[in-house]
Amino acid sequence: MSDRIPVAVLGATGVVGQRLVAMLESHPWFELAELAGSDRSAGRSYGAVCRWQLETPLPERAGSLTVRRPEDGFSSRLVLSALDAASAERIEPGLAKAGHVVISNASAHRMAPDVPLLVPEINWDQLQLLAEQRHRWPGALVTNPNCVVAALGLVLAPLARNFGLESACITTLQSASGAGYPGVASLDLLGNVIPNIPNEADKIEAELPKIIGQGPRFSAMTTRVPVVDGHTALVFVRLGTETDEDGIVAAWRSFRGRPQELELPSAPRSPVIVMDESDRPQPRKDLLRGGGMSAIVSRPRRCPVHDWKFVVLGHNTLRGAAGAALLNAEALVVLNRAHERLRHA
Amino acid sequence: MSDRIPVAVLGATGVVGQRLVAMLESHPWFELAELAGSDRSAGRSYGAVCRWQLETPLPERAGSLTVRRPEDGFSSRLVLSALDAASAERIEPGLAKAGHVVISNASAHRMAPDVPLLVPEINWDQLQLLAEQRHRWPGALVTNPNCVVAALGLVLAPLARNFGLESACITTLQSASGAGYPGVASLDLLGNVIPNIPNEADKIEAELPKIIGQGPRFSAMTTRVPVVDGHTALVFVRLGTETDEDGIVAAWRSFRGRPQELELPSAPRSPVIVMDESDRPQPRKDLLRGGGMSAIVSRPRRCPVHDWKFVVLGHNTLRGAAGAALLNAEALVVLNRAHERLRHA
Amino acid sequence: MSDRIPVAVLGATGVVGQRLVAMLESHPWFELAELAGSDRSAGRSYGAVCRWQLETPLPERAGSLTVRRPEDGFSSRLVLSALDAASAERIEPGLAKAGHVVISNASAHRMAPDVPLLVPEINWDQLQLLAEQRHRWPGALVTNPNCVVAALGLVLAPLARNFGLESACITTLQSASGAGYPGVASLDLLGNVIPNIPNEADKIEAELPKIIGQGPRFSAMTTRVPVVDGHTALVFVRLGTETDEDGIVAAWRSFRGRPQELELPSAPRSPVIVMDESDRPQPRKDLLRGGGMSAIVSRPRRCPVHDWKFVVLGHNTLRGAAGAALLNAEALVVLNRAHERLRHA
Amino acid sequence: MSDRIPVAVLGATGVVGQRLVAMLESHPWFELAELAGSDRSAGRSYGAVCRWQLETPLPERAGSLTVRRPEDGFSSRLVLSALDAASAERIEPGLAKAGHVVISNASAHRMAPDVPLLVPEINWDQLQLLAEQRHRWPGALVTNPNCVVAALGLVLAPLARNFGLESACITTLQSASGAGYPGVASLDLLGNVIPNIPNEADKIEAELPKIIGQGPRFSAMTTRVPVVDGHTALVFVRLGTETDEDGIVAAWRSFRGRPQELELPSAPRSPVIVMDESDRPQPRKDLLRGGGMSAIVSRPRRCPVHDWKFVVLGHNTLRGAAGAALLNAEALVVLNRAHERLRHA
Repeated sequence: MSDRIPVAVLGATGVVGQRLVAMLESHPWFELAELAGSDRSAGRSYGAVCRWQLETPLPERAGSLTVRRPEDGFSSRLVLSALDAASAERIEPGLAKAGHVVISNASAHRMAPDVPLLVPEINWDQLQLLAEQRHRWPGALVTNPNCVVAALGLVLAPLARNFGLESACITTLQSASGAGYPGVASLDLLGNVIPNIPNEADKIEAELPKIIGQGPRFSAMTTRVPVVDGHTALVFVRLGTETDEDGIVAAWRSFRGRPQELELPSAPRSPVIVMDESDRPQPRKDLLRGGGMSAIVSRPRRCPVHDWKFVVLGHNTLRGAAGAALLNAEALVVLNRAHERLRHA
Repeated sequence: MSDRIPVAVLGATGVVGQRLVAMLESHPWFELAELAGSDRSAGRSYGAVCRWQLETPLPERAGSLTVRRPEDGFSSRLVLSALDAASAERIEPGLAKAGHVVISNASAHRMAPDVPLLVPEINWDQLQLLAEQRHRWPGALVTNPNCVVAALGLVLAPLARNFGLESACITTLQSASGAGYPGVASLDLLGNVIPNIPNEADKIEAELPKIIGQGPRFSAMTTRVPVVDGHTALVFVRLGTETDEDGIVAAWRSFRGRPQELELPSAPRSPVIVMDESDRPQPRKDLLRGGGMSAIVSRPRRCPVHDWKFVVLGHNTLRGAAGAALLNAEALVVLNRAHERLRHA
Repeated sequence: MSDRIPVAVLGATGVVGQRLVAMLESHPWFELAELAGSDRSAGRSYGAVCRWQLETPLPERAGSLTVRRPEDGFSSRLVLSALDAASAERIEPGLAKAGHVVISNASAHRMAPDVPLLVPEINWDQLQLLAEQRHRWPGALVTNPNCVVAALGLVLAPLARNFGLESACITTLQSASGAGYPGVASLDLLGNVIPNIPNEADKIEAELPKIIGQGPRFSAMTTRVPVVDGHTALVFVRLGTETDEDGIVAAWRSFRGRPQELELPSAPRSPVIVMDESDRPQPRKDLLRGGGMSAIVSRPRRCPVHDWKFVVLGHNTLRGAAGAALLNAEALVVLNRAHERLRHA
Repeated sequence: MSDRIPVAVLGATGVVGQRLVAMLESHPWFELAELAGSDRSAGRSYGAVCRWQLETPLPERAGSLTVRRPEDGFSSRLVLSALDAASAERIEPGLAKAGHVVISNASAHRMAPDVPLLVPEINWDQLQLLAEQRHRWPGALVTNPNCVVAALGLVLAPLARNFGLESACITTLQSASGAGYPGVASLDLLGNVIPNIPNEADKIEAELPKIIGQGPRFSAMTTRVPVVDGHTALVFVRLGTETDEDGIVAAWRSFRGRPQELELPSAPRSPVIVMDESDRPQPRKDLLRGGGMSAIVSRPRRCPVHDWKFVVLGHNTLRGAAGAALLNAEALVVLNRAHERLRHA
């Protein structure tokens, strides 16, 4: 028997669920024990129902697991949720009430006052909100941000801490996998740009303050481009204090958080990777730097309107979804062990 | 014999030169009389040397013309130049000195104080600069702006006039044809975003004030995306006076200039076309609205940092290059006739 | 009042229906009088329900028409059907029974023994089958072939007639628009090849003999590639008699049919256009040759296994669907007038 | 000091050279000791001159190596050549004369009678040709086939051995990386198919008999499609004896060669992987099966003209180039050790 912690994956057949399944295959702490999908999939083997999208093959053992209904309940205490927002709204609270620790990638509960919107390098403290959840349920519910917000947060937090951040205007060029499967029709995306993703700008403008802290104002425009994986964002920022290009680069390169201190398995060595080439980062060439868990950023350039402008790239299904959920799960395991140590001390 | 005005095309084998050749085929005023290319092409038929890129076939008569060297001189007084910047720098002044009226798409002389950087809907008055050119040469040299600036100018000018424009932050998603041929390697662009086009942001920031007028500050970031034709720009603006969404839409929809009054052949009926759908304009679906000579714009949305934000689409080789040059040539013909009428009165 | 013949379009909101609507806008004989869609669309204006996909704008008058249910019946005698196969199976016979002349792009009735599978340049004679339909209904039902078969037929028929055709092995590279909308997910098609289109090879192998005549054997493999419009086919053929490259090219270039003799409005001047360049035809560059109504073919090359091999390109929504239906409708109008002339003589 | 065998890479800055550099980073037997590029690159660090195209980062140590001129000579006995054909023609014989063992990916010497065209699973015996090279030089020259031929060979060889292969008609859909860098212009490939790759069909038709054996006739047509990596081939075959679908699948699945017996580091466990899904293999989803060193094939379907038809996918820069060269180098190391053992016995 393995001594890895058993976990359940919810929404396992979707693009993010598939990433979770793939990443759990070789995770040092966790083991995929159960997976759940829609009523249509339930009762059949995961390999039979899943339209696998990744470039690495479907892990054999995962393919042989029987897909459950979320309503059937899970024996694993830890549940990773890759549900869509509407299903998450309906299903996740019930799991927390049943005592599960739910690590959710869905947007449904991100903005709830007692739910951490966790980017553990930035706001590890939000895990204290879990104490407030005790009024609602015996379990726990932790969320990670929207797929493009994760990388933006990692790049903007060091600016906010070192120089003060007054405002950021953000344009995103988001990839097809961010829309799930089947997602965007090829007739809409081949050789084209869709210049607005419904509700996406609202999520960016709402989630960033909960992650980085109140104060800065954010404005976003979002687009979909014919790229498979990887969200690019172009950012104009106004800072509170004067600095120079090297100062900003140094703030990014030196940025570390608790996941790096604790050497969590999914934590990248450098949360922010700065590229020196003027035409980088590019999704097809740079997405896997930092194992897909770092935000990749260009050097900043002076902006004639704001102070600075730069380019951010993040892996939307790794740092922006499945990897973020795994990192959050690892944070909770550490937290739990710390609690248990305290309790047994 | 045709009574159309004979014109010569410089740089005829490039992407913009090909558009000029195609558009001249059915132009009511102009007739393609001569075309010039590189030394390598000179002396051979255009059809034999030109790697035709357009979706409409190479016009037969054009294909049979012999490619000349620019140094050979032209019998046509009117010369349309689709040269690259370095060649234009070298060749265009000589043509103006030889008495030609040079309508140039190149960037080489756009910022010269006595050279009009003409978007005739906006700054027809700059044609008065031609009087100052008399000190330099008997001919004339008129330029049109950078491929993405043309559409941005048409959209920003009505804002500047009606509400005052304080600043604009612009992100562009530019198409492959904007880089000419062979331009960007497919290995660099397939499924990818190149997040910086060398010198392009500088051109945008420098040319817009010459077109719209000093005052507003501009900041741009530019990207290349896997789209064949059509540049998209996402714009955040701060205005001088308060207005509302309908006020801005009305300013755009009512915008007209001298080309519309004069009903110039290449002038679009509406220089700015506003689309109501929230996910438009899109390059593959909306590029030919207004015959490729209008700027297409989304409805404006409130911006939490600046005042407004919106999406602009322009056809980079029509309004942004070949069509702009033709429209400028038409403006010069009108101007010339007016002068002649005065002279003979 | 227009004296054009009123026509109804069935399945008007789909990709092929949209092409029909666009083409009818400027058709010299026909006028779009009615259009029908799904229950979900019925009762609303076409402009409001149609997710327009074409690069030319939705014609204004068409946009204002109210979408009908097919069950409501039509006042137009001529009905152009762009229904999917299942709906066509159900709806088209009823219309023929109600006396309508149904010109169908659907596959449902193509192989019925008394239904012409018409490529009028090739098998105009099949219109005689309409006499046999009199046993079934007072109206008429005529079909055009599968989107890639249309162009293949035009290229193979002259070979069959001039040299005898023994066999053809065909590989297709088909575009996204051939799958309709939403059709193929962008995650499945971006930077990818899908190496089999369900049932498509069967249609090719079954329809070609009905069009060209029994005798030759056909084998096909079909793929979907990231192209918006235009199906490419690579063909190996064995001929019954010896010939040479020029003989084949001459057979193609001289091929004409009744639509060319009658100068039908949608008939291309040359049903087969042969390109001399070795890297053509290409979908993005050559698709509109012959107005999208010709088959475009490379020069043939000697094949070490069969006799010859060559490349065919056809516009899948023009010659392969909407344009084919229009051409068939034009053929029926001519036929009808001939009958009336006979009857009144 | 490492005890790995030092190797030199020729043509190291190209697409295939980069793959070699990346693969050598973690190779258990070989160590990148020297790399050579064009005169333009020579004398500078590899990291500074190489426009890195891969999705994994440039290995640090490789980046710091100084690029040499091929003419400077190498201290490594083993030289992996990723040169273009013209340079290989000129440079490789000199290296063999200087005593180097040259493992070449170039086409220049593939068809020379005394040069092995090696796919070691199929024709390990060709290594005996090296004895004949002794007349020409003290070194050795071994080649691997064209990028699409490698996978075709692996799939066709088991058919030839088990059932006899009479003929194969092959259509390829080849990726952008097969053309090197900069290779195909994005304006030529975005949303397009280029229906002929110069000389590629000739290479397929010439190389397959040298690999599989004289007898079968081959005919190929080649296309370039907008895919980054991975060549797809659609194949019609006639066999010498009757079999059924399961017989063919069994022949493929059981196929093994000397590299598998010897467990060479780059040898895939299964040289041919058969996929059961009817819409696979797909380049973006299946390319890395077998680590990019296997040929991936669909189940065969009955062909109305030939006997069978099926789809083949191969990784053009791994099995089709860099990986093939490495596998050949491993074969030579084994051969050499065997010789030495014999010599010392």
